[in-house]
Amino acid sequence: MTRLYADPARFGEDQLRGFAAAYPEHITLVPGGVIRSAPPRHGQVAVVVGGGSGHYPAFSGLVGSGLAAGAVVGNIFTSPSSRQAESVARAADTGGGVLFCFGNYAGDRMNFGMAQARLRDAGIDTRTVLVTDDVASAPAERRGERRGIAGDFTVFKVAGAAAEEGLALDDVEAAARRANDATYSFGIAFAGCTMPGADAPLFTVPDGKMAIGLGIHGEPGVEDADLADAPTVAKILVDRLLAERPATAGRRVAAVLNGLGATKYEELFLLWGHIARALTGAGLTVVRPEVGELVTSLDMAACSLTLMWLDDDLERWWCAPADAPGFRRLPAPETPTAPRALPDAVPGTPIVQGDAASREAAETVLTLLRGVRAALHDAAAELGRVDAVAGDGDHGRGMTKGVDAAVRAAEDAHHRGAGARCLLSAAADAWADEAGGTSGVLWGVGLRALAQHLGDTGPVDAARAAAGARAALDAVTSLGGAKPGDKTLVDALVPLVDTFTAAIDRGDDAVAAFGRAAAEAQAAAEATAGLTPRLGRARPLAERSIGTPDAGALSLALCARTSADLLAESPR
Amino acid sequence: MTRLYADPARFGEDQLRGFAAAYPEHITLVPGGVIRSAPPRHGQVAVVVGGGSGHYPAFSGLVGSGLAAGAVVGNIFTSPSSRQAESVARAADTGGGVLFCFGNYAGDRMNFGMAQARLRDAGIDTRTVLVTDDVASAPAERRGERRGIAGDFTVFKVAGAAAEEGLALDDVEAAARRANDATYSFGIAFAGCTMPGADAPLFTVPDGKMAIGLGIHGEPGVEDADLADAPTVAKILVDRLLAERPATAGRRVAAVLNGLGATKYEELFLLWGHIARALTGAGLTVVRPEVGELVTSLDMAACSLTLMWLDDDLERWWCAPADAPGFRRLPAPETPTAPRALPDAVPGTPIVQGDAASREAAETVLTLLRGVRAALHDAAAELGRVDAVAGDGDHGRGMTKGVDAAVRAAEDAHHRGAGARCLLSAAADAWADEAGGTSGVLWGVGLRALAQHLGDTGPVDAARAAAGARAALDAVTSLGGAKPGDKTLVDALVPLVDTFTAAIDRGDDAVAAFGRAAAEAQAAAEATAGLTPRLGRARPLAERSIGTPDAGALSLALCARTSADLLAESPR
Repeated sequence: MTRLYADPARFGEDQLRGFAAAYPEHITLVPGGVIRSAPPRHGQVAVVVGGGSGHYPAFSGLVGSGLAAGAVVGNIFTSPSSRQAESVARAADTGGGVLFCFGNYAGDRMNFGMAQARLRDAGIDTRTVLVTDDVASAPAERRGERRGIAGDFTVFKVAGAAAEEGLALDDVEAAARRANDATYSFGIAFAGCTMPGADAPLFTVPDGKMAIGLGIHGEPGVEDADLADAPTVAKILVDRLLAERPATAGRRVAAVLNGLGATKYEELFLLWGHIARALTGAGLTVVRPEVGELVTSLDMAACSLTLMWLDDDLERWWCAPADAPGFRRLPAPETPTAPRALPDAVPGTPIVQGDAASREAAETVLTLLRGVRAALHDAAAELGRVDAVAGDGDHGRGMTKGVDAAVRAAEDAHHRGAGARCLLSAAADAWADEAGGTSGVLWGVGLRALAQHLGDTGPVDAARAAAGARAALDAVTSLGGAKPGDKTLVDALVPLVDTFTAAIDRGDDAVAAFGRAAAEAQAAAEATAGLTPRLGRARPLAERSIGTPDAGALSLALCARTSADLLAESPR
Repeated sequence: MTRLYADPARFGEDQLRGFAAAYPEHITLVPGGVIRSAPPRHGQVAVVVGGGSGHYPAFSGLVGSGLAAGAVVGNIFTSPSSRQAESVARAADTGGGVLFCFGNYAGDRMNFGMAQARLRDAGIDTRTVLVTDDVASAPAERRGERRGIAGDFTVFKVAGAAAEEGLALDDVEAAARRANDATYSFGIAFAGCTMPGADAPLFTVPDGKMAIGLGIHGEPGVEDADLADAPTVAKILVDRLLAERPATAGRRVAAVLNGLGATKYEELFLLWGHIARALTGAGLTVVRPEVGELVTSLDMAACSLTLMWLDDDLERWWCAPADAPGFRRLPAPETPTAPRALPDAVPGTPIVQGDAASREAAETVLTLLRGVRAALHDAAAELGRVDAVAGDGDHGRGMTKGVDAAVRAAEDAHHRGAGARCLLSAAADAWADEAGGTSGVLWGVGLRALAQHLGDTGPVDAARAAAGARAALDAVTSLGGAKPGDKTLVDALVPLVDTFTAAIDRGDDAVAAFGRAAAEAQAAAEATAGLTPRLGRARPLAERSIGTPDAGALSLALCARTSADLLAESPR
């Protein structure tokens, strides 16, 4: 929802003043909107765009060289008045006439239309091109009734580039009309935006649904469908636009994957990966796609795909440089004649063959890793819930990602005859590499330190295991810096290692000792519920976590108990 | 929340592939992240940034000339592994050594730290500068423990520009350190983000509160405060940063007002207007501020202010050009030696003096406008609720904005002796100009058409009033194109005008006739509840509005009834 304002009724004017304060080199306030600070060449056609605010970078952010000469800015989702449009057009005109370009909405049509009549009366040649790209808003045979959504951007871009080339008003108008004829958009919404001063969104989408065919003023879609994953959404968007591919269209398209506000960049990129594959699969070449927020709707959660079918002129105008506060296009970097030469990949863990005894120990290690993998997958959701109390809820997923990679690497090493040290080293590196994060690197260094004591020759005896356990604890605490009581996995690791190594020092049976040590680790992990995290986290997180054990300590104890149980069951 | 993905566990990799598909001219995928597609000069220091994903344009979007040489990209909010960091650094290095630069988090420190050790072992000189800009995360005397938030950007920008200048590794490292020492950030959060695959946000802020001192991984703030308006939020942010102004600081600062995801551009601009005034008021000069999304946290609703206290070198590096997918800075447009010459403002309505009779009629018109203003303010909230059923809920606000401006203009015209025609024309133009939108322009043309029949000489008799009413109806239907039954204000305007003019034609008393006409208009407005809107709106809107009257018809009837009551009470 929209929270930052002083007076909701003056949101449009207030935000525009702040915008002007941010970009004084680029734009200058005039009554009704903004124009470029640096005047274009005398006689250059002034492309004047506009509409309500709430769509940034449309419309004020698209004023700059190679794009619009001015923008008329109304209040949120409200057409500017005809006087505003007239005022901005007069200020932007440098003698070449004015092209009004805006999305097809009744209020804008009326207000810009009255302004056009008055400008013509005053001797300023003025034309209008409406953007009608939204295929969901009317059937193809009533193209002229369609609304303008993110296709605003491709049409403005072409009109601005044509004006920058110095074309006459007739030709700039024709270019914009050609761009609009070639531009088609289709969108999907997940949640509505909330207007300044309102306490509820303009619409809601039922749980588990998405709205097909969005509007950009908080209009819901034209129908609800089941919420789908990214590949399915990509297919819906692409199929709908390809179904309207014009008969005359070539194989080159400009594309805009537009986020409406709260559907964010990484989601859009992920979706774009699927869209790009679908377009390429249809035999098309995508030219300088734009993936980001170009025509927004406050904080609406939604996205739309726009295609503009290119001819040579449209492609030149689409690719031309532009410099506006909300959109900058530089000339494309020179395409390297060959892909950049890259160094060899970081070398992987080399495989050291083990002798028979070490290979047998390696097999035991692999069995334990597989058991741990199963246990972590079973516990992943619960670990996530525990972690979500004071963290990002991702601990279960990180652990399973790490252990999955560790088992794969260990299986590969086993297949190639690795000894115990080599196999566990490879598993440790894979765990750290795949899981990433804090727990990934700590598990990686811990297991790697343990591995160094297992050897690639001879059996793994109690002394080796104990030395490895101590080394693992040392490696984890020295890298991570945590001490007992800090509410980390160290709270479980210390009793695990201390109990085990003390028992080995006394000459106890190693398997039995490890079982008791794992039980101690479990008790210690549960006892972390009484602790608060060490400094470095924000205070509310620390407070929030009281009464909940540390997820990292719990997962360590789980791995230890699982291993102990498997060792106890296995033949000696 | 994050909705577009296939497998939550692979979100980081999947989004990175899509990103690479969108910007092949700019960036190239390597194991662990991305590097520039066009290699920098041989021997240029490689500034390698990185961290978890979910922060776009940080980190992958900041790879490009004048900025980073490479970015290491982990899964959402998860440090990349040490092998990823090593891999990207090896690929980005062109013989000048590597500067790792990232926010101060334990996982990143460990993973990049291990990579640095391995790179040095391999003969690649590698340094690290941690970003520690978040003043809320530790007290000033423990600066080194502070986390990195949006200050990442200013530090990366300086390091990238210094590297682009061809400085040696020692000097690029020193530049980055100097930038970090000069960079301070403070933020406020309104709502948490939701991780891919999760069904609840990482945190919530209580209703009516905001969280002070945000984190960028879904961490809540360090304390809750009452939700405040934009001027107050600006003051909180500026005061906190000025309190830590370094003793050596000059009067020039770079500034970043960063949106975390769902706090959108217009809100940020509005807030920036207040921040800019506060900084200027403190005697500071803000150099090329950035207002937008530079270090996000998925769709978190939050913003932060970053200041970097400039010296000559830092200012040069801050202003240097850059071209990365997520940030482009061109050389500042040449500052015009003088502000751009602008034409005269659109001329206002000229005042025509009325004779005594017309001035008296003008006073009656003003009285009616004032009465209508009071009635619309009383009804504004209810009109908004009605409008929200099928529209954006803004009708009440638009009408009050229009009538407020109309009364001001009418009072000014009255004060200057205007006749009835002139006064109502001025009010009509002001209404249209201030309200904007569809209803603003329709009220403007309707009242203006009515005004033309009132004259600036002589009294307003029944014939004039009836001719004006017919002209108003014609003007509204001809501009707006709506017909009775379309569920617009025309549904109330037609019976109002028809009833009134028919009565006048019969010779009825004008005031009584207008009273009956207003009652007809009210009944007709209420009867619009049974209608569906005409084509042009999305179907669900049309369906949703069945059973609710049209807000525009209701407000027209309210204005008519209020006027009729005032006329009935007034002396003849």
